[in-house]
Amino acid sequence: MTAYDRALAKFTRIATLNEAAAILGWDGAAVMPDGGAAARGEQMAVLAGLSHELITEPALADDLAAAEAPNDEWRQVNLTLMREAQIRAAALPRDLVEAAARANAACETIWRRARPESDFAAVCPALTEVFNLTRQSAGILGEKLGCSPYDALVGGWQRGLAAAEARQRQNPGPLLPPGPYPAAAQEKLCRQLAEAAGLDFRAARLDKSAHPFCGGTPTDIRITTRYDEDDFAAALMGVLHETGHALYEQNTPKEFARQKVGESAGMAVHESQSLIVEMQAVRSDGYLSWLAPLVSEAFGPNVSDGALKSRLRYVERTFIRVEADEMTYPAHVLLRFRLEQAMLAGDLKVADLPGAWNEGFEALLGITPPDDRRGCLQDIHWHDGIIGYFPSYTLGAMAAAQLMAAARLALPGLDEALGRGDLSPLVGWLTENVHRHGARLGFNDLLAQATGEALNPAHFEAHLAARYL
Amino acid sequence: MTAYDRALAKFTRIATLNEAAAILGWDGAAVMPDGGAAARGEQMAVLAGLSHELITEPALADDLAAAEAPNDEWRQVNLTLMREAQIRAAALPRDLVEAAARANAACETIWRRARPESDFAAVCPALTEVFNLTRQSAGILGEKLGCSPYDALVGGWQRGLAAAEARQRQNPGPLLPPGPYPAAAQEKLCRQLAEAAGLDFRAARLDKSAHPFCGGTPTDIRITTRYDEDDFAAALMGVLHETGHALYEQNTPKEFARQKVGESAGMAVHESQSLIVEMQAVRSDGYLSWLAPLVSEAFGPNVSDGALKSRLRYVERTFIRVEADEMTYPAHVLLRFRLEQAMLAGDLKVADLPGAWNEGFEALLGITPPDDRRGCLQDIHWHDGIIGYFPSYTLGAMAAAQLMAAARLALPGLDEALGRGDLSPLVGWLTENVHRHGARLGFNDLLAQATGEALNPAHFEAHLAARYL
Repeated sequence: MTAYDRALAKFTRIATLNEAAAILGWDGAAVMPDGGAAARGEQMAVLAGLSHELITEPALADDLAAAEAPNDEWRQVNLTLMREAQIRAAALPRDLVEAAARANAACETIWRRARPESDFAAVCPALTEVFNLTRQSAGILGEKLGCSPYDALVGGWQRGLAAAEARQRQNPGPLLPPGPYPAAAQEKLCRQLAEAAGLDFRAARLDKSAHPFCGGTPTDIRITTRYDEDDFAAALMGVLHETGHALYEQNTPKEFARQKVGESAGMAVHESQSLIVEMQAVRSDGYLSWLAPLVSEAFGPNVSDGALKSRLRYVERTFIRVEADEMTYPAHVLLRFRLEQAMLAGDLKVADLPGAWNEGFEALLGITPPDDRRGCLQDIHWHDGIIGYFPSYTLGAMAAAQLMAAARLALPGLDEALGRGDLSPLVGWLTENVHRHGARLGFNDLLAQATGEALNPAHFEAHLAARYL
Repeated sequence: MTAYDRALAKFTRIATLNEAAAILGWDGAAVMPDGGAAARGEQMAVLAGLSHELITEPALADDLAAAEAPNDEWRQVNLTLMREAQIRAAALPRDLVEAAARANAACETIWRRARPESDFAAVCPALTEVFNLTRQSAGILGEKLGCSPYDALVGGWQRGLAAAEARQRQNPGPLLPPGPYPAAAQEKLCRQLAEAAGLDFRAARLDKSAHPFCGGTPTDIRITTRYDEDDFAAALMGVLHETGHALYEQNTPKEFARQKVGESAGMAVHESQSLIVEMQAVRSDGYLSWLAPLVSEAFGPNVSDGALKSRLRYVERTFIRVEADEMTYPAHVLLRFRLEQAMLAGDLKVADLPGAWNEGFEALLGITPPDDRRGCLQDIHWHDGIIGYFPSYTLGAMAAAQLMAAARLALPGLDEALGRGDLSPLVGWLTENVHRHGARLGFNDLLAQATGEALNPAHFEAHLAARYL
């Protein structure tokens, strides 16, 4: 066995252990009774600690140092990614890793109760602890990697980034008739559309949870959503969004399963895959014309073609990020980007977050959240220790627009296919140009390979202009 | 930190890791899509390998050797149990432990498809591998512990055993009217009865699976069942059976959570707790009279008090163990006990199992299974690597009768309470005399402490005679 092969075996073992944690994470969000929360936090901490122990074993560092560059590009990149992952992990003491996993789980548990009650005070001490521990980790990582603490976090979610921005406009319209839209009918339609988009339910599940997400593993995808009987759009678009994530995971290169180079290219690329399905394909003229009769069949004939289009392309300043339209979404992200940087640097105390949130929201969107439930308590991210992630959403939206423009050039029949509800040409193109590359290329290199240029925000602006102006 | 404390911290970590595996086991049986099976097998193998690695670390053996006997009995027994567990684990090479976990998961996956199709040939190679690996482990363990390989397996499921036996009789009666009994109504009643028996659903779930079981962890119990719309009895009694297991887990001593001495006293004691609820309490005259109107309410008035009693105490020679009555059940166990010993010793080839099963079944019960689905493919146990477990059922049935006799003496109002559907006096007595002792006492010592004598099969015979003769 070569040094490379030994390192590979160790990383495969770590990846398999992390799969176990991914399934437990889904379980905690989707089905676990409340009584299980404390023990689950301990379980996640032990798995994180063991994963960290495996990756920091001195023998692995020796093997990574001794490994000769393999003779094909995939394996060369895999070695680079293993080395980077090992350096990041080895920089952090195990106690800190376990303490962070425990603090994240504890804070998330408190948040699940605090959010509906809009009770920021309840979550404030736990969230302070999350930021304290994250600040420690980010400081150590930044020093090790020669970048700012915040960039060290962002780089952990997405490799190969360059800074990027986005702006916003507005364009209101009429809405759907009031519901109720029964949850069972919503779920049936969600399943039908996900399957039509290419999701293979022999290797996937759809369940309910308070905060929608796509979890699990490439051969066992776990999508969750929530059903609002007053408005089916959130669940429908949410499931199609998660389906974009799921298709990416299902199409990563199987030959490199559980290897660093066989993972996705990072979370900004991941968000581009959910958004290209949800925003670019599903909200296209063709697809919505195909979707309207299905919606009428599911919920009654008064849900017209025009009403559906208006609802799904309605632009309005609202409080909740996950329900925001494409135009106002970047402002939601910008606010969080500023606040998490300030809290990480220590310039903003966690206890002062509610006020800073409301002020910032008023400044960016012109409205003030009436309570913390619709303000700083709405997202799971910070409460689960996910800090430095929000830029991925805006980068993903810009990348999605750029990829869609390239796909339209490459596939003249693309919009005609969308008009038949057929996503397979698009998904085929994405598989070829994004999914099958795994983590071989960083963010900008992947975009350049697929579209001929690094990230260019002009495509997103052109998309917004064409659709909304 | 003393050597004892260091060993304790290590065992707590192992127990937490094993909790993660328990939740993944439930997931695989209850909700996982088929596509996830192969990856799940790997995940279980990695968790088993890591657990084995932790328990076989030389430093742990040193600490266990150096630890001084603590000054209270619980901690003394805990030290003994940690040493026993370490000796058993250290006897086995990690490769064998991981290979067994992988083989068990692979065989179980094949079995899930082979059973409904009654296709023994499909599962035969995988099952042969399971027995081969178990034979290796049992041989090593038997040598280390100075007992037969089979006894080494049995001792892994239940400490402090002495041999015991049981016999059977028969007593037919009228049956319930034909269904359908809607699954939703069955589930509702199952939940109601489990809750009335004392199960706390804030720390437990009830779901469906092909093979009913009670999994999860003490603060996150996962009961599963299956619903037959032609006959509600199997689901109802199954859930109450699993509720007995769940109450035991929920009432083990919290002070010793994740410590060896805080676990249950073993699987024969565990089966006594499920059977004392299902067979002794729920099938008592008083409880059935209370249950009958609830059943009528759930399924319609033609399910009379008399019909319910007849159904739940009907004695008949049938093919399926989990549906067998108290009288014929021991014969089902005896057959498996003989066959697994023969396969483990190598006297019976796995390929010859179907013939040997049918011959043995005819000899013991006078009927021959029409296919392997109702023969050697019916149980998950062997296909999941659970070998040497079956005696626990008969030992548990005998212990349940003995405990019930002692509880009746101690609690004069016991049957009156059962007539109000009130299990709390019984569960309180069991908590005091069984549950709260954790693993402090072995099988016979626990029985002696609770009932004044070691296992005495006369109580089970007296119970059968009183109910059926």
